[in-house]
This record gives sequence, C-alpha cells and structure tokens, in this order.
Amino acid sequence: MHKNFKNIDKVVFGAGALDQLDHILSEKRNENDMFMVFIVDNYFKNKPLADRIPNHDQDMVFFEDIDQHEPTTEQIDRLRDTILEEKGIPSGIIGIGGGSIMDVAKALSLMVTNEGSSSLYQGLNLVKKPGVYHLGVPTTSGTGAECSMTAVLTGPVKKLGLKCDWTVFNQVILDPDLTMTVPRNQWFYTGMDCFIHCIESESGIFYNEFSRAYGDQALKLCREVFLGPDSGQTPINNEKLMIASLFGGLSLTYSEVGACHAFSYGLSFVFGMRHGIANCIAFNHLKEFYGDAVDEFKEMVDFHQIDIPQNLSSGWSDQEISKMADVAYNLSHMWTHALGHDWGEKLSKKDLMDIYRRM
Amino acid sequence: MHKNFKNIDKVVFGAGALDQLDHILSEKRNENDMFMVFIVDNYFKNKPLADRIPNHDQDMVFFEDIDQHEPTTEQIDRLRDTILEEKGIPSGIIGIGGGSIMDVAKALSLMVTNEGSSSLYQGLNLVKKPGVYHLGVPTTSGTGAECSMTAVLTGPVKKLGLKCDWTVFNQVILDPDLTMTVPRNQWFYTGMDCFIHCIESESGIFYNEFSRAYGDQALKLCREVFLGPDSGQTPINNEKLMIASLFGGLSLTYSEVGACHAFSYGLSFVFGMRHGIANCIAFNHLKEFYGDAVDEFKEMVDFHQIDIPQNLSSGWSDQEISKMADVAYNLSHMWTHALGHDWGEKLSKKDLMDIYRRM
Repeated sequence: MHKNFKNIDKVVFGAGALDQLDHILSEKRNENDMFMVFIVDNYFKNKPLADRIPNHDQDMVFFEDIDQHEPTTEQIDRLRDTILEEKGIPSGIIGIGGGSIMDVAKALSLMVTNEGSSSLYQGLNLVKKPGVYHLGVPTTSGTGAECSMTAVLTGPVKKLGLKCDWTVFNQVILDPDLTMTVPRNQWFYTGMDCFIHCIESESGIFYNEFSRAYGDQALKLCREVFLGPDSGQTPINNEKLMIASLFGGLSLTYSEVGACHAFSYGLSFVFGMRHGIANCIAFNHLKEFYGDAVDEFKEMVDFHQIDIPQNLSSGWSDQEISKMADVAYNLSHMWTHALGHDWGEKLSKKDLMDIYRRM
Repeated sequence: MHKNFKNIDKVVFGAGALDQLDHILSEKRNENDMFMVFIVDNYFKNKPLADRIPNHDQDMVFFEDIDQHEPTTEQIDRLRDTILEEKGIPSGIIGIGGGSIMDVAKALSLMVTNEGSSSLYQGLNLVKKPGVYHLGVPTTSGTGAECSMTAVLTGPVKKLGLKCDWTVFNQVILDPDLTMTVPRNQWFYTGMDCFIHCIESESGIFYNEFSRAYGDQALKLCREVFLGPDSGQTPINNEKLMIASLFGGLSLTYSEVGACHAFSYGLSFVFGMRHGIANCIAFNHLKEFYGDAVDEFKEMVDFHQIDIPQNLSSGWSDQEISKMADVAYNLSHMWTHALGHDWGEKLSKKDLMDIYRRM
C-alpha cells in the first residue's frame, strides 16, 4: 500500500500575500456560528503585523505565548473551552506564526468539533469528526507544519501529533515578507528543521522518487540560502526558504522522519526545548546515521557563526536521560524508517542513552 | 493579487498503486445515485488493464476513442446525457488514460451537475455548481492534466478549457507502471509537453519562485529521462517522468503557458492535431521565443530519433493559416505572459501567420 497523501486545499504564494487574507476568509464567514478565531504568536502583539490582522467585530483574537514551551494538549483544551463557552463553533481558525502556532491552529480546528481532551487523539487517525475550516500563515520557514498531516502536541504522557487527513490546512498563505524579522538564531534553527527533514526523508526505507523530487529541490534551496556567496536573510532567500520548507514537508510526508526527530522529541518532552534547536543539538551528534550531511550541517553552523549548545548532558540526571530515551524509543515509525522493520534488534534504549550523553 | 492555487485533494504515488483504486472509491460509493462512471481510453479495451478496472455491478464503463480527435464539447454533452438519462448523477467519475481522458473525466464531473452544453462554460470561472467526486489515473506522463485547473475542450467556436477550482481532481493515482506500454513517439511527444510547460512557465512575466521550484525540478527530471546515458523508457524513468509531469503542471499553473501553446491550440483546432505532437511541431520553430531551449529540444529529438513533421504548411490553405492565427491570437493570457501586457503592440496576426508558414 502506497500512502494516500492529503494536500493543502489551496495555496497562495508571494510577497504581500497576507493582504489577501480578508478576501479569502469572506467566503467562509457564513459557516457555523459565523465568527473567526485568530491565533497569533504573542511576539507580534503591538507590532505592525498585529494591525494587519483582518478581524471583524464578531471575531476572537488570541495572542499565544509559545516562547516558553511547545504547544501542549492543555493549551489546546483551554483555548477550545474558552471559544466554545464564549461564542460557539467558529467558521474558521486562522494561525499566524511559526510552526507551533500552525500546530495550535490545526489542533484547535479539530478540537472544536471533537469532544474530550486533545490528549485522547494523539496518534494516527484517532480523530472522529472533521474539524472546521483552518488557514495557516507561517511567519517562519522550515518546520513544514504548513503542509503536514500532523499537529504536534506535548501531552501528559507523550509528545505526539494529532495525525489525520482533516489536520491538513484548507488554505495556506505563504508570504515571504513575514519572515523578514525572524531573529538570526531562530531563522537558522528553523531552517535546519527543513534541511534535516530532507536528510531524514532520504535516509530510510520509506524513501521514494516522489519524496526525492521534493527533497532534492528543498535541499538545493537550503544550500542556496545557508551556504555560498548569496547566503543569508535576503528577500529572495526568504522566498526560497519558504518554498524549501513546503517541499521539505512534502518530502517527509511521503517518506518519514528518522533518528534526529526521535532524539529531538525526547529533548523537547523532558526539557521543553523548542523543536528547531533540539533538532540541531541532536543532529550535531548523529554522524553514524547521517554521514556527510552532518559535516554539511556543521559547515552551515560555522558559516553563520551560530551557537549550537554543547556539553548539555553534564547537567542532566540519569533519570532525565532515561526518560528522553523512553520518549525517543517509543517513536517506532521513525526508527522503522531509519533502520528497517527489525530496528529493535539493532538499537537498544541503552544505545539511545549513550547518544544523549554525547550532547 | 497572487494566485490562489487549488491543489489535488489527495495523491497516491508508486508502482502498482492502481490496485488501491477500489479501496479508495469504497468511501465515495454512498453519494448521489450510488454508482461510479469509469472513462477509459479505448486503447485499453481488451488489454490487461481493462481487467483491473474495479467496476461494480451498478457502475458504468465507457471506453472512449480519443485517437481521432481531442476531447470535444459535443463528446462531453453526449456522455453526460447518456449517464443522466440511464442512471442519474453518479457518485464519482474516474478517468483512466492520457491527458485527453483526464480532461474528459474532469469536464464530465462538472457537467453532470451543471445544465446546458459544456460549450457554455469554456473560460475562467463560468461553471456555476461544484461537480461530483472525480479521480484521475494517468497512463501517460507529461500533460499536467492530472493537476491542472483546466479541462481543455474543443468546442464549436474555440479550443478552451473549463477552468475553475472545482475542475481539479479530488484524487489522483500516479502509478508509473501504467506508462510502461506507451508507444515511443507518444512517450516523447507527451514528455515534451512537460518540458515545454517548464520552458514557457519560466519565459514570461508571471514567473515566480514557486513556479521556479517546481519547474526547475521538472526540467532536471526531463533531462534525466530524455538526455544522457540513462535516458529512455525504463521503470525508474517512468517514475521520474510521472513526477516531472506533475511538477511541470504545478509550475505552469502558478505561472502560465506561452507562445508554443497558443500556436499548438491553433494547430489542434483547425487540423484536430493531438496536443503533444502539435506542441512539438510549433516549438521546433520558436527559437526567437525560447532560444537555447529549442536547441535542447532538437538534441532530444535527435537523441531519440523522433520524427517531428516538417513542411506541413505547403499543404495548408491561406484560409486555414488565417484561422489558426485567429485561434492563437485570441489566447491573450498566453501572449500577456510571453510578451507582457502590451503584447498587442509587439505582435500582429500577420506575425503569427508568418510563423505558421515555417512549420
């Protein structure tokens, strides 16, 4: 059985495309209880972007702080309860922000129509009913959250996505101008999420020509953005990285992520570390999995003089390392892709703990 | 305003993916009057593929002959009337064949719910109601009809597509094994449709980084398939060309086709010439529009020893040439892309007639 992949329904791409948001929403304002919910990264509160949110009188706008932690099931449940109690089921949910905000918008669109805690639905195809219309406006590039079938949430017992066809956005607005003000470190860490998606996608048993076509093009764009004479946060590179993020996301969706994401999820679960930097911390030490790609990653780190935290494990307890290894070990779909269906014979929890101790 | 592009809802890719068709349809069999309509290229009648069509007792199967002409509005109206009179509105329409069959399936899915002749809807956003579920299984690679927003039809007065969001397939099954038996000339002509899409997409005012990302990757794949040591109809190249077709179609959808397609439409309208070969006949003589790409095209023609008809115009009447020039000249969106908004000042109908006389 080959995967049957759900696309984003509609995509707009181009500098200034955010200005088309109000027009795009106008067709959807007659559904359910006739109001829109905007979930916006708190970073944009009192910034110029906040004035460009096309909220009407009946709409709700939430500025969500996702600096301190990745999206949690508790956060989704709280937002959902507030919306339903105050106004009912919205016509649509619009996320404006980075990968975390994309995931909040995606999860929330499902949870306004599905009962109980979002933690009940962490996994593949556990969601029972379609959600409401949801639209993503990414303001960082690299996560692939704009096109993935997953809304990744950290719950009481695991970090795992709500994954189903209904998770995928109905509409995405790709406006590269919005990424102009991303701080340099975050630009790099998030961009590396895309680079790592492509490397993981190509390094495993689920790789295929469809994933290769998207992944090769995304890698080419990453190299133009992060290496070479025209590297850096320029308008043209912002366009390229936004497309690379989409293509990298599509490559991994039709293939799978691997070892780096497994380690990264452990770091995020135990220490609340943001996904982009957690990926970089892990990838830095995964040469036995990803070979030359790790050298290329280090070249990009040096080129942009980015600080990748080292020697973190000296401050970690055995219990914390053990817990991270548990989280990582349980992501069997990632290990199956990376090492094959017999991965359990090739890799033990102790191996994972040893690798965490290098970080 | 940037284009808001409608994606195919769902895509399966991989050798043997046709076997998933019955399972995919099973979810849709409860809609409307509960039967499916299969539109299959007559080429497959009494061939092994015909036995793999998963039609149930209540379904209708039409083997359509599209060898003699491209899809016409009359053909669509006839099929629609037969289906509605005999069984009502189907749950879905499934097209299995090349670009023409894709276009028939797309047009028919719209015309079972929209009244009057399909010739009423030739143009942009003229269709009034959404169609029924429709699924495409391409058996040739290159046309991009699997992903385009257009069902191209030849009507009594023009060759022009039914173009709207609803035209796009709900599901596409990309099974590269199905292209294994495409005759060599057709493989080449249809593959060149993809090559030409990419060149036209990049040679005009609507080009952008989104189109470039898809187009560059499609061109890279075309070059691997049609030039170099591993060129030819091999299983891996069939995979590559199928993806190139999709990517080329997405590149042009977010940009536009240009001069070659305008000339090609004239050839098809007046002489009923198939789209792939008509493109090749025109592109061969368009060096002032497409420069080095025409030399590269000729290199591929030589490499595969393909016969591109020459000196056709010696058999054409002035009236026929004039009619072709009229058809081509009226495709203003293509000329705007190719030459700019002031294209009317740069190009006359006489110029078009002169170029037709070279062919």
